[in-house]
Amino acid sequence: MSLVVESTDHEQVVFCRDRASGLQAIIAIYSTALGPALGGTRFYPYESEHEALTDVLRLSRAMAYKAACAGLDLGGGKAVIIGDPSEVKGEALLRAYGRFVESLHGRYYTACDVGTYPEDMDIIARESRYVTGRTRAHGGAGDSSVLTALGVYHAMRAAAQHTRGTASLRGMRVGVAGAGKVGRKLVKHLLSEQASVVVADISKAAAEHLRNRHPEVELEDPEKLLSRDLDIYAPCALGGVLNEQTVSALRAQIVCGGANNQLAHDSIDQVLNDRGILYLPDYTVNAGGLIQVADEIRGFNHERARARVNKIFDTSLKIMTTATDTGTTPAHAAGLLAEQRIAEVGRLRSVWLSNPASNGHAHAQV
Amino acid sequence: MSLVVESTDHEQVVFCRDRASGLQAIIAIYSTALGPALGGTRFYPYESEHEALTDVLRLSRAMAYKAACAGLDLGGGKAVIIGDPSEVKGEALLRAYGRFVESLHGRYYTACDVGTYPEDMDIIARESRYVTGRTRAHGGAGDSSVLTALGVYHAMRAAAQHTRGTASLRGMRVGVAGAGKVGRKLVKHLLSEQASVVVADISKAAAEHLRNRHPEVELEDPEKLLSRDLDIYAPCALGGVLNEQTVSALRAQIVCGGANNQLAHDSIDQVLNDRGILYLPDYTVNAGGLIQVADEIRGFNHERARARVNKIFDTSLKIMTTATDTGTTPAHAAGLLAEQRIAEVGRLRSVWLSNPASNGHAHAQV
Repeated sequence: MSLVVESTDHEQVVFCRDRASGLQAIIAIYSTALGPALGGTRFYPYESEHEALTDVLRLSRAMAYKAACAGLDLGGGKAVIIGDPSEVKGEALLRAYGRFVESLHGRYYTACDVGTYPEDMDIIARESRYVTGRTRAHGGAGDSSVLTALGVYHAMRAAAQHTRGTASLRGMRVGVAGAGKVGRKLVKHLLSEQASVVVADISKAAAEHLRNRHPEVELEDPEKLLSRDLDIYAPCALGGVLNEQTVSALRAQIVCGGANNQLAHDSIDQVLNDRGILYLPDYTVNAGGLIQVADEIRGFNHERARARVNKIFDTSLKIMTTATDTGTTPAHAAGLLAEQRIAEVGRLRSVWLSNPASNGHAHAQV
Repeated sequence: MSLVVESTDHEQVVFCRDRASGLQAIIAIYSTALGPALGGTRFYPYESEHEALTDVLRLSRAMAYKAACAGLDLGGGKAVIIGDPSEVKGEALLRAYGRFVESLHGRYYTACDVGTYPEDMDIIARESRYVTGRTRAHGGAGDSSVLTALGVYHAMRAAAQHTRGTASLRGMRVGVAGAGKVGRKLVKHLLSEQASVVVADISKAAAEHLRNRHPEVELEDPEKLLSRDLDIYAPCALGGVLNEQTVSALRAQIVCGGANNQLAHDSIDQVLNDRGILYLPDYTVNAGGLIQVADEIRGFNHERARARVNKIFDTSLKIMTTATDTGTTPAHAAGLLAEQRIAEVGRLRSVWLSNPASNGHAHAQV
């Protein structure tokens, strides 16, 4: 029977329980080669502990790749709390969780994810120093959709540069699936460059609200957006939207959006490639949110965070160039880039430094 | 599918892996209500991760009860390293393990167990401050069999007091199963009180070596010792010696020995009771070894440790009195005592103290 460590490459997996408050959590640390593991806490009514474990192992690994690819001095981690947040979330449970985050003494930093909010981070932070993504009142950087959307925009510009030789999006037809926080801000960037924008959202109200603000935007039904004659398709809502069926309907040449976990499964990357569609891996494109909460750890500086988000252009370009040069996909090239950075920079700790930071990297930029 | 946290009462279970050195370990913390969890590291070629997990959960829970019963300010923990120590134990693996012990930042202290030795603790301690049971050269208290045997002797005296009204063992017939380190030292205590001693060991050489030193000792075959007409039977070798079969053969009125995990399973306690045999729980009787490594954390002081071991007399007496008064077994009474102490003393942390130790107990005596 294979449980946890045997079947994965994870460095550390921590099961936590506090019976009195009802806390049942798993913290997974994929790697700390580049620095402390940072990843959000997902609060979700998993059917079983096994389902929760599977999820946290997958998500923490993705965080390691995202951080490595974004050039951050962070490892990859994630946590899940098992339970329905609307029923069991409370001060005692969150603070019990905070004590377990604290028990890892900075090897893991937590942040918001599905089912947790900045207000929850403030409560967790009453028991732990290793919390980011907090409310503005407590030094938080606020809504991360601003920088996430900026990163998606830069990744699109890089895709244009790679495929057409110019980073300008002027005149390109972009389909934005999702008129939520990230989608709305992305639309503003696109319109400012005079791209032509089609938006779809399962909420008619959300879509119409967006068009009221930007009358030049065209609205479309969510299921029809995929088969529109687009240059770029930008998934900015739910994960798992790219599967065999949707990819076969897709007419865009480029997929580049802000949603997490866009591929229903890893092999979809090859299906996209076989159809000649350039897919920029989601974790490269949407790293703006992580860059923001990482910056917040040092005391948020918008200019510094923005400068790092701007680099998503260079990273995206490098990934696409590498993919072309080596005959692979951008997603595969991004994975190799992440693994290479984890190995090369992680190894540098073997150079001993005679100060208390010698355990980590001397001037790490989380 | 029930994995870990769902099916146990453990506070924290940590899966650790370092692929390069081959480390695969599980650290289980049953409780830290009384203080940091202390328990040895068992290095053993488990058939599967599941088997290792089952073992470490069981052992860490027993350590919590042992520490609570011994009056120590320690929680209960244990660790297992999966693998054959004769094949895979080496500096890199032990130090990788040490980094994971360190990562818990004092919530877990490690020590020797099956497959690990003070020399290994010295290596682990090169990566972690939370290591005890070290070599004498590094402040270690040395061979713990001296205090373990002393504790067994005191528990026997308490059993005599409880059953015969006098703590003297003079003239009592004691069967010592095992002529190892603890058995040999126990025999010396018994002879000094003019008890009559019968010794059995699967190693003829070990048994004869003991008789050469103490000609007044009688030797017996291990399988025959159980059915001898004894007052006290003292298991001082392997665990699991008390099962339905051996208990039905047993003629002693008292079982009190230094071996770990003497009962093949928990229900044997009731079988012993039904036969009118007084069984003193192993973890109460053999706490001397734990008391020693716990004392070593503060810088070993033999007098201090010895004074605490002497109290095994009082604890044993209290357990037997409680059992008699409440119509239960000493093992059951010991479990209740441990749980009561964990709850009552653990609760005291709710009284806030304005110093850095306020997170724990102010003047904890580990």
